[in-house]
Amino acid sequence: MSQSNKDAPIAAPLPAMPVARLAKGFRDIEAAELAGLQRMLGTIREVYESYGFDALETPALEYTDALGKFLPDQDRPNAGVFSFQDDDEQWMSLRYDLTAPLARYVAQNFQTLPKPFRRYAYGAVYRNEKPGPGRFRQFMQFDADTVGADSIAADAEMCMLAADALEALGVKRGDYVIKVNNRKILDGILDVAGLAGDVSGRKLTVLRAIDKLDRLGIDGVRQLLGPGRKDDSGDFTQGAGLSPKDTETVIAYVESGGRDVASTLAKLGELVAQSEVGRQGVNELREIASLIAAAGYGDGPIVVDPTCVRGLEYYTGPVFEAELTFEVNGDDGKSVRFGSVGGGGRYDDLVARFTGQKVPATGFSIGVSRLQAALTHLGEKPKQPLGPVVVLVMDRDHIADYQKLTHVLRSAGIRAEMYLGSSGMKAQMKYADKRNSPCVVIQGSDERAKGEVTLKDLFEGAKAAAAIKDNKEWKASRPAQLAVAEADLVAEVGRIVARYQAGTEG
Amino acid sequence: MSQSNKDAPIAAPLPAMPVARLAKGFRDIEAAELAGLQRMLGTIREVYESYGFDALETPALEYTDALGKFLPDQDRPNAGVFSFQDDDEQWMSLRYDLTAPLARYVAQNFQTLPKPFRRYAYGAVYRNEKPGPGRFRQFMQFDADTVGADSIAADAEMCMLAADALEALGVKRGDYVIKVNNRKILDGILDVAGLAGDVSGRKLTVLRAIDKLDRLGIDGVRQLLGPGRKDDSGDFTQGAGLSPKDTETVIAYVESGGRDVASTLAKLGELVAQSEVGRQGVNELREIASLIAAAGYGDGPIVVDPTCVRGLEYYTGPVFEAELTFEVNGDDGKSVRFGSVGGGGRYDDLVARFTGQKVPATGFSIGVSRLQAALTHLGEKPKQPLGPVVVLVMDRDHIADYQKLTHVLRSAGIRAEMYLGSSGMKAQMKYADKRNSPCVVIQGSDERAKGEVTLKDLFEGAKAAAAIKDNKEWKASRPAQLAVAEADLVAEVGRIVARYQAGTEG
Repeated sequence: MSQSNKDAPIAAPLPAMPVARLAKGFRDIEAAELAGLQRMLGTIREVYESYGFDALETPALEYTDALGKFLPDQDRPNAGVFSFQDDDEQWMSLRYDLTAPLARYVAQNFQTLPKPFRRYAYGAVYRNEKPGPGRFRQFMQFDADTVGADSIAADAEMCMLAADALEALGVKRGDYVIKVNNRKILDGILDVAGLAGDVSGRKLTVLRAIDKLDRLGIDGVRQLLGPGRKDDSGDFTQGAGLSPKDTETVIAYVESGGRDVASTLAKLGELVAQSEVGRQGVNELREIASLIAAAGYGDGPIVVDPTCVRGLEYYTGPVFEAELTFEVNGDDGKSVRFGSVGGGGRYDDLVARFTGQKVPATGFSIGVSRLQAALTHLGEKPKQPLGPVVVLVMDRDHIADYQKLTHVLRSAGIRAEMYLGSSGMKAQMKYADKRNSPCVVIQGSDERAKGEVTLKDLFEGAKAAAAIKDNKEWKASRPAQLAVAEADLVAEVGRIVARYQAGTEG
Repeated sequence: MSQSNKDAPIAAPLPAMPVARLAKGFRDIEAAELAGLQRMLGTIREVYESYGFDALETPALEYTDALGKFLPDQDRPNAGVFSFQDDDEQWMSLRYDLTAPLARYVAQNFQTLPKPFRRYAYGAVYRNEKPGPGRFRQFMQFDADTVGADSIAADAEMCMLAADALEALGVKRGDYVIKVNNRKILDGILDVAGLAGDVSGRKLTVLRAIDKLDRLGIDGVRQLLGPGRKDDSGDFTQGAGLSPKDTETVIAYVESGGRDVASTLAKLGELVAQSEVGRQGVNELREIASLIAAAGYGDGPIVVDPTCVRGLEYYTGPVFEAELTFEVNGDDGKSVRFGSVGGGGRYDDLVARFTGQKVPATGFSIGVSRLQAALTHLGEKPKQPLGPVVVLVMDRDHIADYQKLTHVLRSAGIRAEMYLGSSGMKAQMKYADKRNSPCVVIQGSDERAKGEVTLKDLFEGAKAAAAIKDNKEWKASRPAQLAVAEADLVAEVGRIVARYQAGTEG
């Protein structure tokens, strides 16, 4: 590239040229954020491994029929999946979560797997959905699942895993809560409210009404359980049409949370006393609570929350949701709870899709990107990584010498590069600044004659420049600059780099 | 899951059920291989970072027009890409390499990027191609690229980067070679052989003939440069139709390699003396050679190879190929060189797709999966990770106690899990063996009464079992088993785990 067009703006593309743009709902992740992501993944991996889960990686693409199309956080199947035909006209889909491929893997390898089978997995998943602020069409999940265990201890463990992972990442106790509920208790309440055999979809209307508690308050939920609700704009939403008595049963259920675990469970027990499945659900929660208490988590971080109806069309027993409780500024400027960063539950039907036999399974999934966003609110700001030492090119005829200086630094374990562009000294310094370099190495003909190099500490230099107002003073003192013998290059550069290695400046 | 169906074979699926199967050309990666992969990625990342490259991650999906469809290792565009329309009917494609998304990223962010822009990236890429042995439709690449530098030093650096990465991974000097060639020398030879203005595709025929040297030998290449070649089955391949004199020019070119760098370059210089572009190519290689020598790589690991015609339809200057030279058994049982594990070169036209302005760029890409396969030949065998300590469940009424023992171990940093299945003692031991557990923790009613646990060292136990033939003797001695006070659980289990942590057994 010639000097003239390097810093010039790129001309507007000709009509025939494609516009360089990210696809809608996708994002690039740059070095600072990636460094934080790597640390995060390492920490979660350590926690998941400490629980005995082993790593597994399945491909991003699966046959559509093997993947199924049922999203855990959607009410309806078939939505939100990227699908297409390959060269053999086979329908393929991009994975929309890590659980569906796990079910395929388990069914395919059932004979040889240890049982229970415990694996963790992380990676990108894809949704063919309308993106929005903070909602992307590619994002990362980090899952742990236990397949082939009907023991409720497997569910209790998922709650502890979630708590331990959050705490290992620096979320303090008190700043998060693991909400637990049980699909079976919901079923019990629906039974008691007279919807046992209902197939008209009113069950779903009730679940959706409960899910709106945060937004509409208890009176809004009451209207949606009964005849329906008119919102501020005058739009009417049809309700579930429960009788006043049945409505109050569900309302009592919704209001049974918010106290200590034992009282909530006692209240729930009363409400579903008439329902076999309901009682079973309460017993399961009671067992989870006692296992968690035995493991020393106490009553704090893990709570029973009857309004947690996450993915209840999908889960078959206990459900969990990891929520961050600290407040952040919402889109409208108002302070809101940060909210959910992960969830999971028991799903006993997934492997049965292939085999006809129920294989009990339970899992927990962290929404990695969302959790990383949360951590920045807790002071884990993305930092630009410390850049390489830049060896400036003062004289193109001596490029092999500069290359050699660079190689000497690198061989000593110092991150270093020779400037590879074609611009002059000033642009090279600007480049080094932009790369967040700790220092540049300069060797002009004077230095070469003396067997020396000049080192310039860029962070120190920037501070000095801010302090010195007078250009003449600057030229006289040349702060943060020192001449060293070539033989001392590694030692002196090493000293400067070490100064900045821990807390990255810039 | 009930006891009865857990270990029973899964029934054949009913006709309506999908078959649990991987998509053709895709693979699952299990824990042992993933552990090796993680180590490998960490090592490559360190080397790439030491060269000053910063991490960047672009999405797996891009708009088809922004990605383009030109595979570097294919002669024709438009082949091998997974493409489909999203809900907005926009055409999208899965990335087929990491360079096309880089070009999009650079064009999109040109104003704000440091120039040159130096990034590394790794991740899965996808090819809609016919899979074969060792050829998958999803595989991983690890790339470094310098964009916006026309300095040939940027190309020289790629060769050093490749050498350093291989050596850091344990490939010794002598077991690999970085082949270098230059598209411009090829162009020079084509000029000299009278094909300067040829648009009939004969250039491509010549390149393909050169690429077949390994398989057909020099006489086969000679036939393909001239009238054509009949193979053993009698099939005839049309040749490039060069005159005998022009054929010998190309043959002299093909045979110019295989000596030291200086002699090869001198020979190439003679051959293309009449071609401006050819001389330029030789000068570029000479500069690369001198920079590499200055950096201390000597004449060994990096060689000029005129028969290296990798992706020459795509690259515009120097090209590189990293080849492992040790021999392995080929598919036919014959000993063959392991071959290519990466490559790259200069491509000055990619960003121009968007902007109309050439932006000089050069890069190197490691085929991660292939290189990992290679490393297993060098003794880097995938090892099953050391499994968790398994706390057996002897008595379901005391599950909270077992959970507590597990939690105590985990809190002390010991990988541990409570058995979560519903089977008996024997199956639990089998499970622990299958998980590669170093030890199990047993607490029956006897031990509980005494405040003790029994630890069983499974690796030691397996050795003892192999030595003891007599069942009575076994029962009498109970090798590799010891009773310890509950208070000593962490210390004693820690001792056993430490014994196996470094070199994983099993």
